[in-house]
Amino acid sequence: MAVGEFVETTLHPVDGVKIGVAEAGIRYQDRKDVVIFELCSGATSVGVFTQNRFCAAPVQLCKQHLANTASRYWLVNTGNANAGTGQRGYEDAVESCQQLAELTGSDVHSIQPFSTGVIGEFLPMGKLVPGIKQALDDLDEKNWSRGAEGILTTDTRIKGASVQFNYQGQLITVTGIAKGAGMIKPNMATLLSFIATDAAVDQAVLQDMLHVVANKTFNRTTIDGDTSTNDSCMLTATGRAQTELVTGPESALYEPLFEAIYAVSLQLATGIIKDGEGATKFVTVEVSEGKDEASCLEVAYTVAHSPLVKTALFASDPNWGRILAAVGRAPVDELEIDRIKIYLDDVCIVSNGAVDADYREELGQRVMDQDEITIRIMLGLGTAAETVWTSDLSHDYVKINAEYRS
Amino acid sequence: MAVGEFVETTLHPVDGVKIGVAEAGIRYQDRKDVVIFELCSGATSVGVFTQNRFCAAPVQLCKQHLANTASRYWLVNTGNANAGTGQRGYEDAVESCQQLAELTGSDVHSIQPFSTGVIGEFLPMGKLVPGIKQALDDLDEKNWSRGAEGILTTDTRIKGASVQFNYQGQLITVTGIAKGAGMIKPNMATLLSFIATDAAVDQAVLQDMLHVVANKTFNRTTIDGDTSTNDSCMLTATGRAQTELVTGPESALYEPLFEAIYAVSLQLATGIIKDGEGATKFVTVEVSEGKDEASCLEVAYTVAHSPLVKTALFASDPNWGRILAAVGRAPVDELEIDRIKIYLDDVCIVSNGAVDADYREELGQRVMDQDEITIRIMLGLGTAAETVWTSDLSHDYVKINAEYRS
Repeated sequence: MAVGEFVETTLHPVDGVKIGVAEAGIRYQDRKDVVIFELCSGATSVGVFTQNRFCAAPVQLCKQHLANTASRYWLVNTGNANAGTGQRGYEDAVESCQQLAELTGSDVHSIQPFSTGVIGEFLPMGKLVPGIKQALDDLDEKNWSRGAEGILTTDTRIKGASVQFNYQGQLITVTGIAKGAGMIKPNMATLLSFIATDAAVDQAVLQDMLHVVANKTFNRTTIDGDTSTNDSCMLTATGRAQTELVTGPESALYEPLFEAIYAVSLQLATGIIKDGEGATKFVTVEVSEGKDEASCLEVAYTVAHSPLVKTALFASDPNWGRILAAVGRAPVDELEIDRIKIYLDDVCIVSNGAVDADYREELGQRVMDQDEITIRIMLGLGTAAETVWTSDLSHDYVKINAEYRS
Repeated sequence: MAVGEFVETTLHPVDGVKIGVAEAGIRYQDRKDVVIFELCSGATSVGVFTQNRFCAAPVQLCKQHLANTASRYWLVNTGNANAGTGQRGYEDAVESCQQLAELTGSDVHSIQPFSTGVIGEFLPMGKLVPGIKQALDDLDEKNWSRGAEGILTTDTRIKGASVQFNYQGQLITVTGIAKGAGMIKPNMATLLSFIATDAAVDQAVLQDMLHVVANKTFNRTTIDGDTSTNDSCMLTATGRAQTELVTGPESALYEPLFEAIYAVSLQLATGIIKDGEGATKFVTVEVSEGKDEASCLEVAYTVAHSPLVKTALFASDPNWGRILAAVGRAPVDELEIDRIKIYLDDVCIVSNGAVDADYREELGQRVMDQDEITIRIMLGLGTAAETVWTSDLSHDYVKINAEYRS
């Protein structure tokens, strides 16, 4: 299940990035489950990672490698998260990087590993190593869509986004892919996302860009409030486009490039929510007029995580009392009930701490019948605002998570 | 649905407390929906209430009345929460107290109102007032079980508990009833609970007792993490037993009475979880070896609220990776993964940050197949400990909350 129709997007190749895909049978047969990204020499690469303390072996290794040497290869496997696997899991992650380093004649530190899938089982190295060889033989600049397919787990559709813009007569491309459908409340990154541009960007500037963008896109989404052990988001700038190096916000290219990266990330992040496990609704929770952004965010997440709000959304039931109850229990110090207004899209349901005088059930029902709904909460305390995106809680969510061990 | 078989409990009458029940048709016909408690003159009464900012009109009024005069009547209606109803809701609550005051010739401030049911609709006063008269005609000391039935909403079974003990040749009774099945993460009290004893207890001491007891019983339970707008827990001490007044922990009766009130509250609180909406499992989450109780509680609630942990429990799937991931994302500053141990009952699943060397799937499966499961998490940092009780997340939870507007 997923919200709305799938729209195929053209994923423009990024000069300096090749992608190879293999079917290694990690967990299932006849399924793409190993993806390798080859980045050109001279590319700058940065990443943001899960804040879950039980972070997986590949995440630990990835961070170490990234601190040492420029990225040349991103090695992704699905079907197995290599998380909760202790020392042996760590050694398996090292071994898979060493295999790829030997096959390509590259420095092992230039390789970043990523795993996603079931937690607590050991990586089947006997299957992964042949998969690496197969994926290397497949490397091609045009493989973004196949790569997007190769990183999926319980997702029902690929997530890809691509933006091009002209800068001083030069076409600049930003293309990215992502995966994720459950255990989604990213904290510094989403499950897995890989984004590339052919612009040239200084490493520290690229890192800042990714932090800001991830915080406002991936880190504002939630399906079930469960932050994964494997969340990773990578961004590379190959520098193959013939433009000047972006060294900071003062560079003329900074602003349009930032906007393009933001647009790609937002499309990937909201794509993940629309394909959330069992999702039938795509819900935007906008909290405004707050004292500060932190309190807006607390209110937004309290509503977005409420099982009672999420089941009412699934039922298309304008049961606004559940939204009001969720706002009222949000863990923020200052909240003045009499100042709060709550809207469903443009329909005011609550004002002055009670149901709005003009509200009628059929107005709320009209909004709730839609696939995409915005819950707007005005706190009446200040000028801060935050937005998060979420999905509903359906029979299929329980079915997917009770019947399958993902 | 509910966990385990229903066991009928004898609810001993409490001298000085009479209960009357009526079928007023507040929301449904042929259903007990108005309950009145009549307390003898001289009883001391205290309450703890929801911390939800959108607290319902009856909760606001209840707190005001309790501050002024000793309780003589507790007036409960189900089928309508009188929450999110603004000024008119408040006036309706006042009016219902005034009606009861006139019919009984008592001070309006001696009446505490309680409402539970759908949020955001106005109280049907034309039905409530005849219900009050009918319930007054029904007053009897033996009506505890009928009262327990009269306060139910989506509950499938009554919750009652009763403890008697001898103190210096005098039989002391503590009896209580409660209701609640959804929107359950009490904060200072559970949805509705009414407890009485015939001991004589000073008002301030009784309030302290209730705070401590509610914090360790009702306030350690969660079904869906949603704190209600109407949570209220009341405790009265009629003083009809011929014992000395309890004036503090130095009184000889303090300790046995406290234990009895705690036992009744714990039985009511865990009864609510076993009858949680769609519940098929009763789950105890014990967190020990913490630096402080607050961090133990954060870890326990993060596990207890995780939709992925809850759906795995429903599926009887020993998918311990989800427990590990939930512990890892708990919002506490200090957490040393390598020191953490996780057990399912007596089966060690995680030690030193990874799956325990002796763990085998069939051991975890044996525990998961039970109706009642304890998840034990040792943080390895100190001596603090906390326990919370929760239920699983089943198909029926979604069904109940999507198909019915409760």
